[in-house]
Amino acid sequence: MNAIDELTDSFSRLPGIGKKSASRIAYSLLKCDQKFLKQFASELMTLHERITTCSICGAYTESDPCAICTSPLRDKHIICVVEQPQDVQTIENSHEFSGLFHVLGGAIAPLEGIGPDQLTINKLVNRVHKGDITELIIATNPTVEGDTTALYLQHIFADTKIKVTRLASGLPVGGDLEYADKLTLARSFRGRTIL
Amino acid sequence: MNAIDELTDSFSRLPGIGKKSASRIAYSLLKCDQKFLKQFASELMTLHERITTCSICGAYTESDPCAICTSPLRDKHIICVVEQPQDVQTIENSHEFSGLFHVLGGAIAPLEGIGPDQLTINKLVNRVHKGDITELIIATNPTVEGDTTALYLQHIFADTKIKVTRLASGLPVGGDLEYADKLTLARSFRGRTIL
Repeated sequence: MNAIDELTDSFSRLPGIGKKSASRIAYSLLKCDQKFLKQFASELMTLHERITTCSICGAYTESDPCAICTSPLRDKHIICVVEQPQDVQTIENSHEFSGLFHVLGGAIAPLEGIGPDQLTINKLVNRVHKGDITELIIATNPTVEGDTTALYLQHIFADTKIKVTRLASGLPVGGDLEYADKLTLARSFRGRTIL
Repeated sequence: MNAIDELTDSFSRLPGIGKKSASRIAYSLLKCDQKFLKQFASELMTLHERITTCSICGAYTESDPCAICTSPLRDKHIICVVEQPQDVQTIENSHEFSGLFHVLGGAIAPLEGIGPDQLTINKLVNRVHKGDITELIIATNPTVEGDTTALYLQHIFADTKIKVTRLASGLPVGGDLEYADKLTLARSFRGRTIL
């Protein structure tokens, strides 16, 4: 196997890149300057060294605890609970939330053998008991697994004074009613708001 | 900028990868083992060192002259003329051609300032005069530039005994007449064959 085939092979192992795209990328890199390739290679090599997960919230960070957990500007009374570390960045990009985060590391999925013990739910309970938390916003995915996890968390904190909320689910903004699937439409009816 | 953002940025500079895909890939690499990242990085670093262009035909190769130019099994009387080095691999993958190649390095495009002198046409003329060539198959792209280049080459070799042919252009196999564009359909009429 020559250098181009090897590189094509590596690129095609990445998510969303097929054999054709991988080959196109490999050939395009032949026309790139060596400086970019060197920098790109070093970014790949040092990724694992540089990125760790925050010991408090579980988000990806370069320093532990992460910038969000240590920031004096964040609201320490609200925790937004997400499934994956990358969900933290997605929510941060929306600039809609200024509280803290908690990464579960997945969602309850009995068929895949993932129960509450495989997630960081105990850690969340400890955080809530230690801190002065008033609200938990459950931002797990609007899937069967995400909904199950949300219900489970609601159940756990039912006897406490903590308000447990869930992100609204319904029609995506800018979408077309015609293309909405039945489940989304049903949920947008149930969650309808007064104008 | 943290390590994930830097890597996302590098990936989004590659052809066909947008910001979202780049971010998805960067996060997926956090879950890869270091061995793959190390190998991937080294492939990127050594790409320019390992790959050179063949001094005879202009194809990408690890050894100069390339395996095709030096192979005793190839038909040395036919040269397939292509625009880009990667076109050689595309044709090799089809297993339809067993002759030699010649990479022009582009196609004649006056609007972009690319004339015959910017391509390796002189080199092709020399190869043809030196060797015992009977046929030139022009496999430039079926675009205005590719067609112009094909006509130019036909003109150059008009006074010689060399047969100059062009790859057939028409409906793609497995395609649907309904989705064929007008130009392709017109050309498939002009190039129709007797059954």
